[in-house]
Amino acid sequence: MSKLFRARRAPKIVGLAALTLTSVAVMPGLASAADSAVDNETQFIFNTFAFLVWGALIMWMAAGFTMLESGAVRTKNASMICLKNIGIYSIAGLAYFLVGYNLMYVEVDDFIGTFEFFYSTSPEEVSLLDGDDSALAAVVDNGYAVMSDWFFQMVFVATAASIVSGAIAERIKIWPFFLFTLVLTAFIYPVVGAWTWGKGWLHQEGFIDFAGSTIVHGTGGWAALAGVIVVGPRLGKFRADGTVKPTPPSNVLIFTLGVFILWLGWFAFNGGSQLALGTAADAVSMSNVLVNTNLSASAGVLAALAVSRPLLGRMDLFAGMNGAIAGLVAITAGPAITDHRWAIIIGAVGGLVCTLATKLLERLKIDDVVGAIPAHLVSGIWGTLAVTIAAGGRFHIQLLGVVSIGVFVFAVSYVLWRAMDSLLGIRISAQVERLGQDAGELGIESYPEFVLMPEED
Amino acid sequence: MSKLFRARRAPKIVGLAALTLTSVAVMPGLASAADSAVDNETQFIFNTFAFLVWGALIMWMAAGFTMLESGAVRTKNASMICLKNIGIYSIAGLAYFLVGYNLMYVEVDDFIGTFEFFYSTSPEEVSLLDGDDSALAAVVDNGYAVMSDWFFQMVFVATAASIVSGAIAERIKIWPFFLFTLVLTAFIYPVVGAWTWGKGWLHQEGFIDFAGSTIVHGTGGWAALAGVIVVGPRLGKFRADGTVKPTPPSNVLIFTLGVFILWLGWFAFNGGSQLALGTAADAVSMSNVLVNTNLSASAGVLAALAVSRPLLGRMDLFAGMNGAIAGLVAITAGPAITDHRWAIIIGAVGGLVCTLATKLLERLKIDDVVGAIPAHLVSGIWGTLAVTIAAGGRFHIQLLGVVSIGVFVFAVSYVLWRAMDSLLGIRISAQVERLGQDAGELGIESYPEFVLMPEED
Amino acid sequence: MSKLFRARRAPKIVGLAALTLTSVAVMPGLASAADSAVDNETQFIFNTFAFLVWGALIMWMAAGFTMLESGAVRTKNASMICLKNIGIYSIAGLAYFLVGYNLMYVEVDDFIGTFEFFYSTSPEEVSLLDGDDSALAAVVDNGYAVMSDWFFQMVFVATAASIVSGAIAERIKIWPFFLFTLVLTAFIYPVVGAWTWGKGWLHQEGFIDFAGSTIVHGTGGWAALAGVIVVGPRLGKFRADGTVKPTPPSNVLIFTLGVFILWLGWFAFNGGSQLALGTAADAVSMSNVLVNTNLSASAGVLAALAVSRPLLGRMDLFAGMNGAIAGLVAITAGPAITDHRWAIIIGAVGGLVCTLATKLLERLKIDDVVGAIPAHLVSGIWGTLAVTIAAGGRFHIQLLGVVSIGVFVFAVSYVLWRAMDSLLGIRISAQVERLGQDAGELGIESYPEFVLMPEED
Repeated sequence: MSKLFRARRAPKIVGLAALTLTSVAVMPGLASAADSAVDNETQFIFNTFAFLVWGALIMWMAAGFTMLESGAVRTKNASMICLKNIGIYSIAGLAYFLVGYNLMYVEVDDFIGTFEFFYSTSPEEVSLLDGDDSALAAVVDNGYAVMSDWFFQMVFVATAASIVSGAIAERIKIWPFFLFTLVLTAFIYPVVGAWTWGKGWLHQEGFIDFAGSTIVHGTGGWAALAGVIVVGPRLGKFRADGTVKPTPPSNVLIFTLGVFILWLGWFAFNGGSQLALGTAADAVSMSNVLVNTNLSASAGVLAALAVSRPLLGRMDLFAGMNGAIAGLVAITAGPAITDHRWAIIIGAVGGLVCTLATKLLERLKIDDVVGAIPAHLVSGIWGTLAVTIAAGGRFHIQLLGVVSIGVFVFAVSYVLWRAMDSLLGIRISAQVERLGQDAGELGIESYPEFVLMPEED
Repeated sequence: MSKLFRARRAPKIVGLAALTLTSVAVMPGLASAADSAVDNETQFIFNTFAFLVWGALIMWMAAGFTMLESGAVRTKNASMICLKNIGIYSIAGLAYFLVGYNLMYVEVDDFIGTFEFFYSTSPEEVSLLDGDDSALAAVVDNGYAVMSDWFFQMVFVATAASIVSGAIAERIKIWPFFLFTLVLTAFIYPVVGAWTWGKGWLHQEGFIDFAGSTIVHGTGGWAALAGVIVVGPRLGKFRADGTVKPTPPSNVLIFTLGVFILWLGWFAFNGGSQLALGTAADAVSMSNVLVNTNLSASAGVLAALAVSRPLLGRMDLFAGMNGAIAGLVAITAGPAITDHRWAIIIGAVGGLVCTLATKLLERLKIDDVVGAIPAHLVSGIWGTLAVTIAAGGRFHIQLLGVVSIGVFVFAVSYVLWRAMDSLLGIRISAQVERLGQDAGELGIESYPEFVLMPEED
Repeated sequence: MSKLFRARRAPKIVGLAALTLTSVAVMPGLASAADSAVDNETQFIFNTFAFLVWGALIMWMAAGFTMLESGAVRTKNASMICLKNIGIYSIAGLAYFLVGYNLMYVEVDDFIGTFEFFYSTSPEEVSLLDGDDSALAAVVDNGYAVMSDWFFQMVFVATAASIVSGAIAERIKIWPFFLFTLVLTAFIYPVVGAWTWGKGWLHQEGFIDFAGSTIVHGTGGWAALAGVIVVGPRLGKFRADGTVKPTPPSNVLIFTLGVFILWLGWFAFNGGSQLALGTAADAVSMSNVLVNTNLSASAGVLAALAVSRPLLGRMDLFAGMNGAIAGLVAITAGPAITDHRWAIIIGAVGGLVCTLATKLLERLKIDDVVGAIPAHLVSGIWGTLAVTIAAGGRFHIQLLGVVSIGVFVFAVSYVLWRAMDSLLGIRISAQVERLGQDAGELGIESYPEFVLMPEED
């Protein structure tokens, strides 16, 4: 891949700004660098350091998903969730290095980037590190260290993959799941990314998704929905008499820890998506992003708690916690708004639709173990459409993005799950499912010394 | 609120420096900006980014309190702690946005700021984000992005509210507790803040409290004490025969995790309270703050462990862990000292008085479930007075601050708890208390699959 | 100690660069400051802030070790692990302040630094904080705030001490263990550090260890090995019939949380070891470090999982998790390489040798409770030698470093463990060992309300 191209790959935000129709949501990004008193090398360091610090905290979200999911599933499957999640993060990181980033960002035509292998430090950077100071200008001209952006984008793909894990927990075989993760992180997500952040056709239409309500959370959610439909509900979840077997979190403290980890990580997820910190305008916008992210999540919690009593018959801890996630997902598509009151509305509606969707999925006998589809997909759709309120989106374009990404991800995922099911079988045996994947597949128990209750059907 | 006022609201530290009588503890803050070679916009970015990064890590303390408390209470009430804490953080964030920040920082006369609703990005910032580069100078002149400071201050109010939760756990009804949280975060804490960091009367007297030994931890501690007195001890805690029923942490690992999270967050809590990073002097001072914070906490742990054997009859894990918190609270009022040996003394005494106060509260039959009053209030008083040793405080002024804030917070809190008790009842029924709040109020269990020991009285 | 000396103590990386034989791995550090367009004070702030932010996240690794270890041991010893680890971190912080840093970095001749007590803010910094702006140039000339570097180095010594704790868990008395920690952090580690990062004899030979595969992880590993040999295996671990009693993690979720915390902290551990952020070259190199760290860890996980089935008879969760640690340790000696594909190879081999070594230790009847010796020592040796592949090391010098540090640390540790065993006894009684240290020594239980399985021998 040519350095020239890469040097010119301005951060996604520049293009968005150019296309934005309303001034409310203009995000400066590197575009305004020329207007800044800050010298280019200082800007370069700020931009790079922001990618690294926020990127590290986004990686922490992998722990958040692991805790949320392993605390949510029944004890007999909790270790499998731990293994799956560290596997997901590892596979995603390698797949995105192998081909994913190149497909998403390098030499993107309308639909996809280059199929070259590996991504790397630029030749100019290697020269500079070798002591050739004449390379400095070319390095700085890129705006940020080449691999700092790779690192930042990599932790996003890992997030998308984590979403799938929770929904289809407790009955999916580990190897097909890892294979799906590989395809999702090497191909499906990068294609969606190429259409949008890679400046492909949806970006050119004017689709806005600041940090990925649809690009990340929608992709994960659609892939999860396809998986849940193909693999079917857990044994005994939907009883013959029409009632639903309650399967509350088996470890509420660990589940709660997961939610807090995700909340923390989201400041980095959304704040870092400003993609630049080299100007006062970037710093102002990043501040607004963190504030709106927090307001939206808070509103999501309280809205979900408030409706849980009429809707679910009690003040529901699980609804409140998932309301936080829903609030966070909802604001993710347009968190740089300057009228912060909208963040409260957007988050509250997110918490509301998430709680409603949880109820609806049960009616449809779709068994999503951790409520990932309501929180990530449904609230993500709401958030992507809500960009039209105060963040400069046009409704029909936002809808086009939601639908086209949804159709693509769902279709490819569905075919893949189906194909794997025919060829390998994706569902564990009923015997293993009753025994649990921990004992049945891994030969361990999550808490081998605790005495457990025998499960009732 | 006028932009002019806000633009001139120098960070709290400037005023303190001006009033400081000894040169040892002068903290530079933005005051020294003029003497710096760093250009104003670069300073602006540093200041803003420090607020955001440290602010995000302070939010993480909400998880720390949640883990510490849910690991400390008996299993039957642990989920309620999780729900309360995510509720606290959500309420605090919205209340502080609605009125809290304005009452604390905007147009403060001696006692209180403005009652206007909402706080927001400044008009100059909106102009800059809209592409009007002529607004840059006015934006940069503020020293930091307006909302980055809001974010940083917001996570402090959440901390104050979290302190209350642990002390009165296991017998308080959730709705009165949330109502108290709302008043604490929308009114009580902002008033205390207006007197001090908002440059009200206590600040004008010369009261020094760098990051809030009294302003944050004392406020939380006094509010907790009032609540504990009004709600009374847990059933069976103080037996008729004069003995005390031991109620050790029900999950030591989660409790320990909470302590470590708080320790990490405290680097941000104290370090970020330098409020500026735009000059070498700021960076030096922030470094000293982190070092002293760590030394004090370490000394608190070892001092508490050392005295736990003679005092409590064994090397006490709980005392050691709470000693860390006490050491952290103690140094919080004056962590920028340059003779770091004092930090060890201050932290060690903090660990000591915390352990003594734990014993004393038991004697007084005051039932503080997690030891919040010893660690936050008692050690906070010590730390606030200790500012006179090496951080430039005058004893009678420090004492004035401790007493006046104590009287105000305790009185308002006491009246509020009493009023709510008369009108709504703040205590759960004896039946729910025996059953536990998780099953009794939330209809769930923290660990539904683990077999638990029946509780003995 | 003279300020002049300290002001000139260039970061460790400068010296390394000067000695490096191949251009691939030249790390810029402050050496290239003169070539940068960034003014000195801005560089000073960047360098300092990087130390503080990354240092805070490295402290978080103390929580990671605590969770990993307390989740790995049997329930009856988990609280003791919590207490030990907060004790370790506290002792390490104070010992390093008392003498450790001075022995390691100040006025180092070939073998050791000065025996002066305490380390402190420089006189120039005190002057600057007192408002004397004429001190600014001297302060800035140091490159970073004096205590920010102390903070960063302190969290490293705590890491080395944590490694010991896990290996010798479940049978070591707490007081001898704390005494060993004191000697390790006040003397053993600082001496190793003086030889290398303090620019002593090994550094002068050209030994390269970027962030401490051998200096930190090898030191911890050798000290652990000596302890494990002296204290002997746990009762019943190696049965008379030659079989090995399985002792799987008692809390897999907490164990997994520990691994994720360490992974996050490692970005700071390695990234911060760039020791500078003031130039574009530093920012580029730091980015490469984070990327390689992640690739290596991911490869370690997958390699360990892949070989666990043939080697251990099943896909082994414990092997996969420890493979992450092994991958992280392996890349630590040379993470700034610019051909990132090597990071995958280095990490994969790390995961492989760790899994093999785990098997080997069992054969040798060496009882390492958490697999610290395979992950930290064995993989650390591999990583230190692997510096010759792409990070500029010479094999015989790397080997010299591994052997000389190994001999020194193992010998001193072995003598110390033996001496303490003769004088104090380092092993708990068989009665306490059967009962568990929590009940036997601390008088508490980790989960007092959970019903536990009686242990079988």
